[in-house]
Amino acid sequence: MSFTIMHSQGNARTGIIKTKHGNISTPCFVPVATQAAAKALTTAQLNEVGSQILMVNTYHTFLRPGMEVIKKFGGLHEFMGWNKPLMTDSGGFQIFSLGKQNAAKVQGNTITFKSPRDATLHEFTPSRSMQIQETLGADIIFALDECIDFHTPYEQVKESVKRTHDWAKECLVSHERNHQLLYGIVQGGKFQDLRTHSSEFIGALDFQGFGVGSLFGEPKEESKNVLKWAMSGLPREKPVHMLGIGQVDDIFDAVEQGADTFDCVLATRLARMGYVFSSECTKRSKWRYRITNAKFRLDRKPFDKNCACWACTNHSRAYLHHLFKADELLAYTLASYHNVAFFHTLLTQIRESIEQNTLAQLRKKWLR
Amino acid sequence: MSFTIMHSQGNARTGIIKTKHGNISTPCFVPVATQAAAKALTTAQLNEVGSQILMVNTYHTFLRPGMEVIKKFGGLHEFMGWNKPLMTDSGGFQIFSLGKQNAAKVQGNTITFKSPRDATLHEFTPSRSMQIQETLGADIIFALDECIDFHTPYEQVKESVKRTHDWAKECLVSHERNHQLLYGIVQGGKFQDLRTHSSEFIGALDFQGFGVGSLFGEPKEESKNVLKWAMSGLPREKPVHMLGIGQVDDIFDAVEQGADTFDCVLATRLARMGYVFSSECTKRSKWRYRITNAKFRLDRKPFDKNCACWACTNHSRAYLHHLFKADELLAYTLASYHNVAFFHTLLTQIRESIEQNTLAQLRKKWLR
Repeated sequence: MSFTIMHSQGNARTGIIKTKHGNISTPCFVPVATQAAAKALTTAQLNEVGSQILMVNTYHTFLRPGMEVIKKFGGLHEFMGWNKPLMTDSGGFQIFSLGKQNAAKVQGNTITFKSPRDATLHEFTPSRSMQIQETLGADIIFALDECIDFHTPYEQVKESVKRTHDWAKECLVSHERNHQLLYGIVQGGKFQDLRTHSSEFIGALDFQGFGVGSLFGEPKEESKNVLKWAMSGLPREKPVHMLGIGQVDDIFDAVEQGADTFDCVLATRLARMGYVFSSECTKRSKWRYRITNAKFRLDRKPFDKNCACWACTNHSRAYLHHLFKADELLAYTLASYHNVAFFHTLLTQIRESIEQNTLAQLRKKWLR
Repeated sequence: MSFTIMHSQGNARTGIIKTKHGNISTPCFVPVATQAAAKALTTAQLNEVGSQILMVNTYHTFLRPGMEVIKKFGGLHEFMGWNKPLMTDSGGFQIFSLGKQNAAKVQGNTITFKSPRDATLHEFTPSRSMQIQETLGADIIFALDECIDFHTPYEQVKESVKRTHDWAKECLVSHERNHQLLYGIVQGGKFQDLRTHSSEFIGALDFQGFGVGSLFGEPKEESKNVLKWAMSGLPREKPVHMLGIGQVDDIFDAVEQGADTFDCVLATRLARMGYVFSSECTKRSKWRYRITNAKFRLDRKPFDKNCACWACTNHSRAYLHHLFKADELLAYTLASYHNVAFFHTLLTQIRESIEQNTLAQLRKKWLR
């Protein structure tokens, strides 16, 4: 078994995912290293803030640097200089979300798309996605799925779910049984019967773990239900990853449903836009503030008074404000560093609260 | 005495500059933190690569964040989160080099200029430069000087040198005798009599050290002579800083003349343009190569096989090539990190060779 549940409180649990490149204590936040690099952060800095595993995007690395380069290095770990666990997505999400740019078309089990950079034509199939991800060599990989907008109408979603299920079976067949953990992905839009069906169908297959996709949606109450349906058919003893989940309240909701890992670009993307996550902020401000606001010009306080990260220990809001105003590259590094540390700290608190059966209190404190 | 010479070989010497924020082993390379931040590098990373002291530009920090912010922090050290030595220039160089943008005018002891950002009008005088630099609080500060192009004609340079000398005396008068070491600046363009005169005049004043300015010039043989004249009248027992010197051969020339510290933006500026300094390159290529060159796409070697920096230990040329091609911010950080480490390593070798009386051999090895 590559996943061990250590402690449960309701559906929430702490656990350990064992991989060739080390163990991951769950629930765990997974920073995104889109193009085989976390934006503005070195691997040393990611280690410092406590990153246990990174998510690399198959689509991006497939196009650049391309498979020849990755093969030369024997995989992403060596190429990136990161010797802890990695996960790669299937490539599907980017192909579909960048649909207009790359003219993606689906026919049977084949997605064709054009590289937005050089207009070269590419084909992804379930087995090709497996091959590529095996070459990338991440510790956790995902079955190819069709990603659809949360608000896609019923009939279209139904058809798409069928396709995702067919592809999941194909991925299982083509996957070489190596050290990589293959996760199947639950889809089904916002519809109870489709999500439940997808959860049961994917959950019954011989995957080592599961992902839940296409969860972006408003209102929040609706996506909370969707999450519940998506988890309903999954075997409890296997790990579950939430694709692209990263708001504080969404993380609490997902953890309470039994989710184990979460990747999200928000921590680093918002950092580059000047947003700083802080435990001093509330749900109303989405736990963040904009450091470029004039009121921080003379503010000697750390970014977040409750944060023990290196950036908060050594720098002030006024300094970060200055760096953004002065277009200094260091601004992106310091904000990204802290924001990633913020989410790791949050997840550490969540792990501790589950062990102490105080998750509800922690949630209340954060969601005040 | 704030400067102790430890060992001499000809005019070259190793020494220690004592400051309130710690000692500096010389000869020493001084990375530039223009706007109170080294571009793309954290203070932790600067510590890692062995930076002993940073140069901050008075002109830039005066305009942004501005003196109100710096005062609030009690100086640059606290504002930047850097507790080792700092130096600030007088502001003169930027006022003159950005002359067209800021409509700089000199009348008597007053330079007026417009902020290029908000068109506000500002005045610098020798005593104002001292006041500002005292507020900035760096450990080594510079007298206000007029910076002129290396190829300015004789009569103009003569007049300018006179002005710089008058200002030097004014700076000495206005400088509060605190922990800050005040350096006077030798000017004089490319003319032997003016440089010699300036060196003797400035060298005779009660400064704690000296800077040599406006040394950019070609051909190199000419600027080597200029350097010699500029050093000729300076008392040997005081430290000498080379303003804006940072090519490998220029550093050797200056060290041989008795120079102790060197600031230069080349290490970080060229890094951001994709140039990597390497001991594997020769004088002909100016000790650097362009990592974006296609031949590095599959190159698994470190940036510089003789470099022990973290970036060289953990990353390859192919990875850095990819980061630049993919416009990843990490590219700037890794290249800057290594380039600064490269110059620190070079200066460490120079210090060791002086101690062992082998500077000539080291020079020969580097300038092959």
